[in-house]
Amino acid sequence: MGSIRIAIVGVGKIAKDQHVPSIAGNPDFALVATASRHGKVEGVPSFPDIESLLENVKDLDAVALCMPPGPRYSAALTALRAGKHVLLEKPPGATVSEVDDLVAEAARKRVSLFATWHSRFAGGVAQAKDWLAGKTIRSVRIDWKEDVRKWHPGQAWIWEPGGFGVFDPGINALSIVTDILPMPIHLTSARLQFPENRAQPIAAELVFADADGPDRASATFDWRQTGPQTWDIHVSTDNGELLLRSGGDKLLIDGQTVVDSGDAEYAGIYWRFAELIAARESDVDLRPLRHVADAFMIGRHEFVEPFED
Amino acid sequence: MGSIRIAIVGVGKIAKDQHVPSIAGNPDFALVATASRHGKVEGVPSFPDIESLLENVKDLDAVALCMPPGPRYSAALTALRAGKHVLLEKPPGATVSEVDDLVAEAARKRVSLFATWHSRFAGGVAQAKDWLAGKTIRSVRIDWKEDVRKWHPGQAWIWEPGGFGVFDPGINALSIVTDILPMPIHLTSARLQFPENRAQPIAAELVFADADGPDRASATFDWRQTGPQTWDIHVSTDNGELLLRSGGDKLLIDGQTVVDSGDAEYAGIYWRFAELIAARESDVDLRPLRHVADAFMIGRHEFVEPFED
Repeated sequence: MGSIRIAIVGVGKIAKDQHVPSIAGNPDFALVATASRHGKVEGVPSFPDIESLLENVKDLDAVALCMPPGPRYSAALTALRAGKHVLLEKPPGATVSEVDDLVAEAARKRVSLFATWHSRFAGGVAQAKDWLAGKTIRSVRIDWKEDVRKWHPGQAWIWEPGGFGVFDPGINALSIVTDILPMPIHLTSARLQFPENRAQPIAAELVFADADGPDRASATFDWRQTGPQTWDIHVSTDNGELLLRSGGDKLLIDGQTVVDSGDAEYAGIYWRFAELIAARESDVDLRPLRHVADAFMIGRHEFVEPFED
Repeated sequence: MGSIRIAIVGVGKIAKDQHVPSIAGNPDFALVATASRHGKVEGVPSFPDIESLLENVKDLDAVALCMPPGPRYSAALTALRAGKHVLLEKPPGATVSEVDDLVAEAARKRVSLFATWHSRFAGGVAQAKDWLAGKTIRSVRIDWKEDVRKWHPGQAWIWEPGGFGVFDPGINALSIVTDILPMPIHLTSARLQFPENRAQPIAAELVFADADGPDRASATFDWRQTGPQTWDIHVSTDNGELLLRSGGDKLLIDGQTVVDSGDAEYAGIYWRFAELIAARESDVDLRPLRHVADAFMIGRHEFVEPFED
């Protein structure tokens, strides 16, 4: 059993598919409890909410917050005030503003706050970042197209205000590009397509500039893609072409495969969390969420055909 | 003539009404040029754009950027790269992300970047902040209701994507509350009303929480108010009631008037800019813009009757 006693709060699909096995596979952690309205993990004590968890599990060190972004702030604040290290699933909050307040609270309590971006731990990302360092970027092209019915079956909250819509997967792409590019980018225009019967977009087209010019990067996010799924980032530089495929698992340089890895994102997240806790540091990068907020703020809204689950 | 040689870029209504007289009234500044596609200031050399301004006025120290937020980033970057101090009209950019890049550039060049929020310089604001310091805030109520036809006659860009709509005045209220409240707040829900024929909201209802509970603050922004105009902020505390009226010009404590000032906001801005330049410091607070981006991101969009100018 690992020395960091952790609890999962919000036991849904992502917790069961990713967090439970990643914690089990990491020698630094021991899953000692869960808190969730409905979900449980076999063999682990469960509580209905974070308050009863904190009251009953006295020697808890850390919590992983896996519920939707809406209620995450209040759970995070409760855990930080109790002196626990906190891991936030992505996106780290419903708003940009609230996460800054959590950073301040973590600093006051001298505990670690980790706003995770799981796609940054895909097998090809670190090497892509190394390869791009020092190069001049000519253009960046992001294609992030998947079938919402396959990945979010019946998840009504993603279509509600604050649910992010197609930016729920799209923010994964933004978390990778903000990590690997050697220069900052900012949005200059966006087109958001809302199904007539939904409050969140099903598709988006984004255009970004950098300090040296407009149209440096563009992105298409689309939740209507059936058949093969596309999660690709192309970066054209003064010294070669980079392609991250399959959400970052595969890396090609000038057409040659240099990384072809399986899914190991959440294992990487927990290694990093253990490292942060050991150093009593936080890791909160809000750039991906800020780009999404910018897209909603300056985007042109369009309506498309209704979406039925 | 003042020792800081400044140029105005973007000579429209706000530049003529406020910046020109405020610069003229400040002994630290001398207005030596303008750059604008159309507008000019009598007796001052004018240039068509910032590039020709910088090329022709070699001993320029600073620029005040008064154009709409869309083209502001590129002008600001150009001026910063040329080593000029930069004053940004509100809002400081079209996106939250781009302003952060400007902060980094100002630091590299060791010049001052000042993201102004003119309402923070209204006569009652500093005293309101002092009075609230250390008090427990029970509730905050913002009413910001004005007639768009009176204040933005025929300004088409405010209705376009990136034009902010009713958040153009509303962000003034947000700039005051983020300044005077002793604790951070964050948005928990928003309702945005878009005229059917416009891309930006004509009215908004916002609800904010703080770390100690939900519904701590609420705001109504409305651009459809004819007759008397309302720019009021009520703050209820454990030790009395505060009311800022007329956009902050008037301050009442427990019903008694303690400040009743005329409009001196832009004079205050230029005093502060001179102070920043002398200290080689920047002042960029993005919280008001972040709240607006959050509102677009998590707000429920509704459609209301068309608006014709």
